Amino acid sequence: MFESAEIGHAIDKATFDAAVPELREALLEAQYELKQQARFPVIILLNGIEGAGKGETVKLLNEWMDPRLIQVSTFDQQTDEELARPPAWRYWRQLPAKGSIGIFFGNWYSQMLQGRVHNAFKDAVLDQAMDRALAMERMLFDEGALIFKLWFHLSKKQMKARLKQLQDDPLHSWRISPLDWQQSKTYDKFVRVGERVLRRTSRDYAPWYVVEGADEYYRSLTVGRILLDGLQAALRNDARPTPHPHAAPLTSSLDDRGLLDSLDMSQVLAKNDYNEQMAVEQARLSLLMRDKRMRKHALVAVFEGNDAAGKGGAIRRVAAALDPRQYRIVAIAAPTEEERAQPYLWRFWRHIPARGKFTMFDRSWYGRVLVERVEGFCSSADWLRAYGEINDFEEQLTDAGVVLVKFWLAIDQDVQLQRFQAREKIPFKRFKITEDDWRNREKWSQYRDAVGDMVDRTSTEIAPWTLVEANDKRFARVKVLRTINEALEAAFAKD
Amino acid sequence: MFESAEIGHAIDKATFDAAVPELREALLEAQYELKQQARFPVIILLNGIEGAGKGETVKLLNEWMDPRLIQVSTFDQQTDEELARPPAWRYWRQLPAKGSIGIFFGNWYSQMLQGRVHNAFKDAVLDQAMDRALAMERMLFDEGALIFKLWFHLSKKQMKARLKQLQDDPLHSWRISPLDWQQSKTYDKFVRVGERVLRRTSRDYAPWYVVEGADEYYRSLTVGRILLDGLQAALRNDARPTPHPHAAPLTSSLDDRGLLDSLDMSQVLAKNDYNEQMAVEQARLSLLMRDKRMRKHALVAVFEGNDAAGKGGAIRRVAAALDPRQYRIVAIAAPTEEERAQPYLWRFWRHIPARGKFTMFDRSWYGRVLVERVEGFCSSADWLRAYGEINDFEEQLTDAGVVLVKFWLAIDQDVQLQRFQAREKIPFKRFKITEDDWRNREKWSQYRDAVGDMVDRTSTEIAPWTLVEANDKRFARVKVLRTINEALEAAFAKD
Repeated sequence: MFESAEIGHAIDKATFDAAVPELREALLEAQYELKQQARFPVIILLNGIEGAGKGETVKLLNEWMDPRLIQVSTFDQQTDEELARPPAWRYWRQLPAKGSIGIFFGNWYSQMLQGRVHNAFKDAVLDQAMDRALAMERMLFDEGALIFKLWFHLSKKQMKARLKQLQDDPLHSWRISPLDWQQSKTYDKFVRVGERVLRRTSRDYAPWYVVEGADEYYRSLTVGRILLDGLQAALRNDARPTPHPHAAPLTSSLDDRGLLDSLDMSQVLAKNDYNEQMAVEQARLSLLMRDKRMRKHALVAVFEGNDAAGKGGAIRRVAAALDPRQYRIVAIAAPTEEERAQPYLWRFWRHIPARGKFTMFDRSWYGRVLVERVEGFCSSADWLRAYGEINDFEEQLTDAGVVLVKFWLAIDQDVQLQRFQAREKIPFKRFKITEDDWRNREKWSQYRDAVGDMVDRTSTEIAPWTLVEANDKRFARVKVLRTINEALEAAFAKD
Repeated sequence: MFESAEIGHAIDKATFDAAVPELREALLEAQYELKQQARFPVIILLNGIEGAGKGETVKLLNEWMDPRLIQVSTFDQQTDEELARPPAWRYWRQLPAKGSIGIFFGNWYSQMLQGRVHNAFKDAVLDQAMDRALAMERMLFDEGALIFKLWFHLSKKQMKARLKQLQDDPLHSWRISPLDWQQSKTYDKFVRVGERVLRRTSRDYAPWYVVEGADEYYRSLTVGRILLDGLQAALRNDARPTPHPHAAPLTSSLDDRGLLDSLDMSQVLAKNDYNEQMAVEQARLSLLMRDKRMRKHALVAVFEGNDAAGKGGAIRRVAAALDPRQYRIVAIAAPTEEERAQPYLWRFWRHIPARGKFTMFDRSWYGRVLVERVEGFCSSADWLRAYGEINDFEEQLTDAGVVLVKFWLAIDQDVQLQRFQAREKIPFKRFKITEDDWRNREKWSQYRDAVGDMVDRTSTEIAPWTLVEANDKRFARVKVLRTINEALEAAFAKD
């Protein structure tokens, strides 16, 4: 979920300086229009990793916009007055009126994150807290409010560097409280809980935006852009309640760098190494599938990827290690008539393996947010809600002991072209290349965006995506097998 | 929540026999139209009290409609195949295809009700189960499904009589399993958990209908009507997903009897008795408010009622018992400009008393589902969502230790007329009667329906409504004070 916010997004100072004047003016204008219309309030929730720039962002927004129309609320210790009343009372007191902007620093999410990270309660209670938060946000939305939820993110390495830098700087050392350092230690837990919270509470009426916080210029410009786009869209739309205009992308990328760009596509595996490693991994998988701990689990592997990325070849190498009674390969094509008469996920639910079994999906439920999105085979409302439905579906699988591995096999445009041309020349491979493939190729950048959104929104701790650098088929096949083996071993180790 | 389904709704055989042929024909026609359009499936969930007629209703629906297009699924013990897969797999397997009807007998709600009633888990886990159910239903709705959730209800007395009658009947005694009898013992708990489930899972896309099950004719006709109205509306509306046409009333009343009709309005209190009882109850309240256990609680009393029902007089009698520093009276009129710039509940949240204090609301947040609904001051979407928001709000109050009592002061139309006329003759009371009052009077039956829906949807175990027979002011005032005292004592006893 945070993958795209750990790739080192950055913008240089010159670009930043050039962009700011126009952004500021537009934000100010939107702010006055908001005041003028006085039709709805704007609520901005700030959360995320310590040191990722929440405080600086609030300061900057107050500089960029008219601070008289922005009300910043911090919610730390409850006051006596607040303690004497229901917990939500403090938030109701601070709600911005229609026409104004309220920034909630240390809001309901901070409370539940802290509580769960410090083991004050379990997941079930966290889930209840999320329900309550969503009920509040839904009510605010129904009353017309425009809600932004911003998660400022840093990778663990970035956070450590950032905290060190702040500590070393005599002007800023006051910022580092013991709590911050403690959070550095509990980073992993914080991120794990944070992911659960974001996954379950990102809704069309109140979506999360994940902003990589390491680079000040990138972070500031990104936040400014998100707010401006959302504000302008809501000001134009006078339906009430205003449907929130942004449900995707989760992570906006101003520097035009996506997750796929951060892969090292030059990785290769020499033939000898391949033969050796393949033999090892196949033997390992064969053993694991016959392990008695497999009786408690099922295995599901999802294969997605660019056309000609080598999904079929990878699947065959996996299958080669196994007894055919243990696995099934389900190739997903256009739905049948029977399948079209059912909800979208029905045709995948029917192929869920029983315990002890393994199903490989050659293309999968992700079709909805890939080909169906790009080709317009479903409405945007349909693919937008699919992210949540898929996360829910996969959570049900893993809760029931299914080990789920998901592969995106990525190749370069050049490599794809070579493979297409090669296929056209080889008679028995010619059937593998169609007009559609050439058409899809023209939509390369749309697919790239769709893949980025898909990974950001559906790569979760319980069901992470594995991006496979597949320019070299040997490298890709070994990585696939090894990933499956590691996932099985990790699941067995937890039993 | 079940109040309206315990008043002994009944329809005589002649009326039933006269109504059935037309209903059957219309149902059959709708069913064929459903098949023809094949645009959406219909899913009917059956739950409720044992012996309230779930089984008979399924049988009847299969008689009335074409059973080839109805698929009845029961979910009892999980099969081996089901046990080897995620819990939801069994429901996915049985989903009706577009154009057909699926009846789910013993569905996800049965599982969670049984589990909670038999203490297999706590409320937090029940809440998680409800979330999962709602996510499933939301997905089904987004995919176009028309969902009916029917709760067959019996009062405890009705249930006992019903079980006895079935047991005594040699033809039917096979129906009574040990589980049923056990349920008779756990009736209270089942109803309490059931209420929590209904309160939290009744949504516009999948609302609950509560059907009183004691009278076979009433029950059957009611179910037939609900299905027919819902089906016809969905068949007419070709937007997808189809917004569900019925979100209110929760309880449909075919015999034209409402909750208010079941009050005994002839109750009176003689002057001597009144003086004595009033003195006792006022002294009791005074003591309770000074009890040290009051430090853990706050008290909120809501006064609603017909115009001229005597709210003001009742409030004065309560206040007379107290030190003015202990209580506040908040009279709710049209919202101020500041209040209009905030979400609807904001103006009530600001008056929530701190612990140890008491606030009386002379009219309240229920205005939204009474006057605003009837007069069209808000959209139907607004007042429909208000039920859920109010339940959520009140749950937050009671969770924080607030004791909440809610009064509906009911008078007859005749009594109101006398009081209006009397007021017009008394100079110092003339200000109390306005054109509005006469206008409201003309909408008597609309208000009666709104009050019925309000009580059905917002009378909960944690915040029940007290209906006060207020034709006799003395009777009403004593009942109000006594109810407050009993609520405080009950809360103290639980500490």
